[in-house]
Amino acid sequence: MLITFEGIDGSGKSTQARLLVEHLRSEGHATMLVREPGGTTLSERIRTLLLDPALDIDPFAELLLFSAARAQLVTEKIRPALGAGDIVVCDRFYDSTTAYQGAGRQLEAPDWLRAFHAKVTGGLVPDRTYLVEVPPAVAQARREGASDGTTNEASAPDRMEAGGLDFYRRVAAAYATLAEEEPDRFVRLDGEHSIDALHATVQADVQALMAA
Amino acid sequence: MLITFEGIDGSGKSTQARLLVEHLRSEGHATMLVREPGGTTLSERIRTLLLDPALDIDPFAELLLFSAARAQLVTEKIRPALGAGDIVVCDRFYDSTTAYQGAGRQLEAPDWLRAFHAKVTGGLVPDRTYLVEVPPAVAQARREGASDGTTNEASAPDRMEAGGLDFYRRVAAAYATLAEEEPDRFVRLDGEHSIDALHATVQADVQALMAA
Repeated sequence: MLITFEGIDGSGKSTQARLLVEHLRSEGHATMLVREPGGTTLSERIRTLLLDPALDIDPFAELLLFSAARAQLVTEKIRPALGAGDIVVCDRFYDSTTAYQGAGRQLEAPDWLRAFHAKVTGGLVPDRTYLVEVPPAVAQARREGASDGTTNEASAPDRMEAGGLDFYRRVAAAYATLAEEEPDRFVRLDGEHSIDALHATVQADVQALMAA
Repeated sequence: MLITFEGIDGSGKSTQARLLVEHLRSEGHATMLVREPGGTTLSERIRTLLLDPALDIDPFAELLLFSAARAQLVTEKIRPALGAGDIVVCDRFYDSTTAYQGAGRQLEAPDWLRAFHAKVTGGLVPDRTYLVEVPPAVAQARREGASDGTTNEASAPDRMEAGGLDFYRRVAAAYATLAEEEPDRFVRLDGEHSIDALHATVQADVQALMAA
């Protein structure tokens, strides 16, 4: 089973991914947590490039780098884990590229991206995607507030986080559209609810998904 | 004017690219020489990943990394130089990806790659492409012979050069097919001719191209 968490930076999705993995492991399920971009030696080295504020990266090159990191992660880690029957929880997956590069950078049409993602992942589709939604201004305040404990980011914004509020509004709107288009895969969560309340919702939904 | 040099590793194309640039500069033409993957800060950092023999890279991730380096090079260097009226000489361009990843790695069909390259380069097509052809076994012997002076590679093969003779046979055949499909763009050169003879042929052809 492949479960992904999506949302804009500062939504709290990484916290929810971690809590779900801790819960699944405590229940005895072999569970792998990976983050995008990253999770393999190559992908983490690509991540370093993508987040470097000193690099001025062409938007299409950015899309290709995220996708290269993803192709490597799927081949090297996700497919072997799924093949062994493990649960895989992924902090971001291809929906991030549709939202961030497609809509945020206003780069490519959703149809082209859908076909492209299928090539990059070899047709892998998550069984469930949790979209943690918060108003972009709230997420920005969270990212800027070093003491709120909801992020583990350094205080200076990385290259992706420097996109600005309009950028994040486009990303959030694209996520909402994706969730509307695939209501069976997506579960939308109100990221302004408490961490515990969100975790309880996710936990109950995963339980129902595993029973089904 | 955009001029590219293509061929398998050890064909002598880099030598010919350099000689052409020296000639054009001696004639007073503002000329930029770039190599792929590379030519920008980001692209050179991607090159380091691609040639690292310690990394086991998924073939589609490899294709995306070469293409990311290319997108950055086109945006940051090639388009501004062409816009300023300079001649750009490129040691490898998208035909390398068609030949190496498409045919060598047996990855994607030429039609898909053609459409993909157009996205990566924003539709940029070289005015002339010199394909330096040598039998794969000859190129391999050149790469292995440290004292023949035809390459400036370190003695240990990089990750791309470790592909083996069958790999290079597929790459060479794909290059030949590309040249047959676009006879107006490609000029095929016999890489077993002397360096001086090849350079004279290239020089005469470029002169004719500039006069046209």
